[in-house]
This record gives sequence, C-alpha cells and structure tokens, in this order.
Amino acid sequence: MYKLVLIRHGESTWNLENRFTGWTDVELTPTGVEQAKQAGRLLKAEGYEFDVAYTSVLKRAIHTLWHTLDEMDRPWLPVVNSWRLNERHYGGLQGLNKAETAKQYGDEQVLVWRRSYDTPPPALDANDPRGQRQDIRYAKLQPEQIPLTECLKDTVARVLPFWNEAMAPAIKAGKRIVVAAHGNSIRALVKYLDNIGDDEIVGVNIPNGIPLVYELDADLKPIRHYYLGDAEAAAKAAAAVATQGKA
Amino acid sequence: MYKLVLIRHGESTWNLENRFTGWTDVELTPTGVEQAKQAGRLLKAEGYEFDVAYTSVLKRAIHTLWHTLDEMDRPWLPVVNSWRLNERHYGGLQGLNKAETAKQYGDEQVLVWRRSYDTPPPALDANDPRGQRQDIRYAKLQPEQIPLTECLKDTVARVLPFWNEAMAPAIKAGKRIVVAAHGNSIRALVKYLDNIGDDEIVGVNIPNGIPLVYELDADLKPIRHYYLGDAEAAAKAAAAVATQGKA
Repeated sequence: MYKLVLIRHGESTWNLENRFTGWTDVELTPTGVEQAKQAGRLLKAEGYEFDVAYTSVLKRAIHTLWHTLDEMDRPWLPVVNSWRLNERHYGGLQGLNKAETAKQYGDEQVLVWRRSYDTPPPALDANDPRGQRQDIRYAKLQPEQIPLTECLKDTVARVLPFWNEAMAPAIKAGKRIVVAAHGNSIRALVKYLDNIGDDEIVGVNIPNGIPLVYELDADLKPIRHYYLGDAEAAAKAAAAVATQGKA
Repeated sequence: MYKLVLIRHGESTWNLENRFTGWTDVELTPTGVEQAKQAGRLLKAEGYEFDVAYTSVLKRAIHTLWHTLDEMDRPWLPVVNSWRLNERHYGGLQGLNKAETAKQYGDEQVLVWRRSYDTPPPALDANDPRGQRQDIRYAKLQPEQIPLTECLKDTVARVLPFWNEAMAPAIKAGKRIVVAAHGNSIRALVKYLDNIGDDEIVGVNIPNGIPLVYELDADLKPIRHYYLGDAEAAAKAAAAVATQGKA
C-alpha cells in the first residue's frame, strides 16, 4: 500500500481579503504560516517520512511546503516545483473580491465560474498586466501553455500529465511523496484519483493547511482517504471554503 | 564568460556563541536571516538571474538560500541539496566554544585544527551522539562517507566530486548557478578554482552572507572574483572570521 499526502497552502492574503487569486503570486498570512507549521507538526507526530516533495511555482504553496518541512526537521528533502500544480487560473476575475463579484453578477453566476466543471471565467487579455506571459518563471513554456483563464476541466488537463509523468512513477518506485498545492490543483488530483463525476466535484472543498492522506493500492487506486488531526475541524474548514463566493 | 555566485550562510546561533559547528544542524540567528535577505536584495539590485541553486543539507545554508531567493522573488527556482556541500566536519570539537578551546589547548593548537590543511581535529567516536551515523538524511551514504572528523583536505576531497559531476557541467551547459554553503566548503571550491596552495588557504576567510562572484572563462578558470556590495565591509567581516579561534 502506498500513501500520498496532499496539503492545500495555508491562508493567503487574498484568501483573507476574499479575492480571486488564481496565478497571482500572493503571500501567506501569519495564520497561513501557522497552518503550514501545524501541518508539519501533525505529520511529524504521526511519524510520516517523505522522499520527495512537490509544489507549484507560487509562493503561498512553496512557503507552505518550506514551513511544513522545517517543522518536520526535513528542510533538506528534494523539492520539485511545477507550474502544472499551480492554482486554477481565474482569468478576468483575478484580483476581484468574491463577495462583490457575487453582488455584481449574482451568486449563481459566480458559483458557475467557481465550481462549474467546464465554464471558464472571462479570459484575460493577453497583454493584461494581471497575466503571466511576461513572467520569467514561465519563460520556457509555449505561450499557449500559459492560460488566460481556466475552468476546472482545463486545470485537470494540465495537472494530469504531471501526475502521470512525475508523481505516479515516483510513488510506484517506492518514493513517499508530499504535495503542497492549491484548492483546485488538489481537486483535480482528487477528481482523478476518486473518479468523481463532473457534477459531483462541485461539492468537494479542500481546507487550507490540513494534510489529506490518500492510501493507494498497487495500481494507485484509492483505498481510503482522511484528513490528519481533528476531523471535525477539517470538515468545518472545508465548509467555510464553500461559502466564500456568496454575496 | 560564466559567473558563479557563492554565499556563505548568514550568522548561525553557534557562530554567535563562538562554538565549533561542523555538521551540527543549527539555526540562523535573526542577524543571519537579515544577512541572507540582504544578499538577495543585492543580487536583485544587480540584476542577477539564476537557473539552479545548490546548497548543503544543513538548515543554516538551506534557510540562507530560501531567504535569498525570496528577496529575489525567485523561491520557485530548482534547488539541489548535497551533503558534499556541508561544512567541514569538526570531529570532537563540535559543540565546544572556540575561545575556551583555545584557552585549554592554546591558540596555536586551535589554529592548527581550524586552519591546517591536513591535520584534522580529534575524531568523534562512531557512537558519539554528536555524530551523524544515525541521521536519516545521510541514510543512503556508506558509513565511511559520513566523517567523524575532517581536515580541509578531506573537505576538498568530498566537495570536488560534486563540483566535477554537478556544478561544472551545469555551468558549461549555460546554467547560471548560485551556491549557499559554508565557510569551509566554499574555501574548498575557492582553493580549487584559484589553485591556492595548501599553506596559503589558511589565510583565506569567507564572511557570512555576502555574495562572492567568480567570473570564469570557457574552461571555468577564474578571470576575477569580488564580493558584491561594500568591499570594505566584506574585508572587515572576513577579518573578523579569522579572529574567532583566539582565546
């Protein structure tokens, strides 16, 4: 049996301000740092060991990983960064307040943008300063690989090659892996692993900074999954994520 | 022409306490964190860009690198950790105060242990709790690769394979590299690059947290080297390192 540990980054400044973040590279809040450290303390207390860590190229996930590894006394573990683990790109909504957007467009439209599987928010203009086409960290990508907006289906499509080509082979080679990523890149993995339907994934919410453990069989099919620590607190935190987009 | 940037970690708790550290995994002090950030600010102000970063498996160097990369807005750069970039192993002196050791054994003996090229300090017993044979981060090494003490000659011997097999090929492949390491692993590289004699290397001291830039020709022979920022401050800091082992 294999184990895979997924951690959504701790609270970010734009989580706190209730703004659509996407590929915008915002910092953790002090609460987010504490959540990340707590994740590390939980993993250490439960005796988890890892051989390699994966994260995105966005600092809220990278810093979450660093704090987690520090608390585990494992800051020396190899870390692989991939843009494929980035948050879903939120297009023209990036930077907007979620509740104000809901007031303007209605709860229903925002819920569609946030949670519909295949309807992306309005696209950014290619030259919009909120976009990433001039960002040095994506300089080696083809321009068409750098999204101007994404629905979750798009996110799944760019996360899965990384699962298939990097993470799954590592797990099968016996590497114990931990992933610090984002609400929607983790939902993409969860949807694939648990074979969740396009309509059902809407109801799946990932709380900040609580390690989500998947136990996988020899074919990497999930046997079960659970949050480390206080199960009730994890459920509450996930429920809070669901209400963020309401006016 | 290639550029190579070497950074000795910022001040550590045992630098501050004037204790022999070696492979003991101590933290940066707040001053050390600030030095690391300042290194990042200098590199950013001078327009430095890197493709890959190298560091040891000791947190004072890892954290120095993290703070440096954060200040450069480059926390997503790939990082390679290697035990071969660790500080010189200080054997039975690890944990002892440098000035008290000098009082007990005399300035001359301590200077020999600190700066002789080929006289190691007394070895740790293989079961000494100050040793690393039970440390999980070295679990994949052969026991004889985990030192019980080292002279600088020993450090050079284990640093150079990493230079030859990882760093030099990366530089020749056009990768711009930055190394966050330790006083003696950096001295080992400097001795090799500048072809410094066994007797002369005694007089070379590396200050904490100041980027040391090597300009290298096509064969990776040094053209010149210099510290970034205030040259006088760098010279003063290096001179201060030289006096640490005196009673």
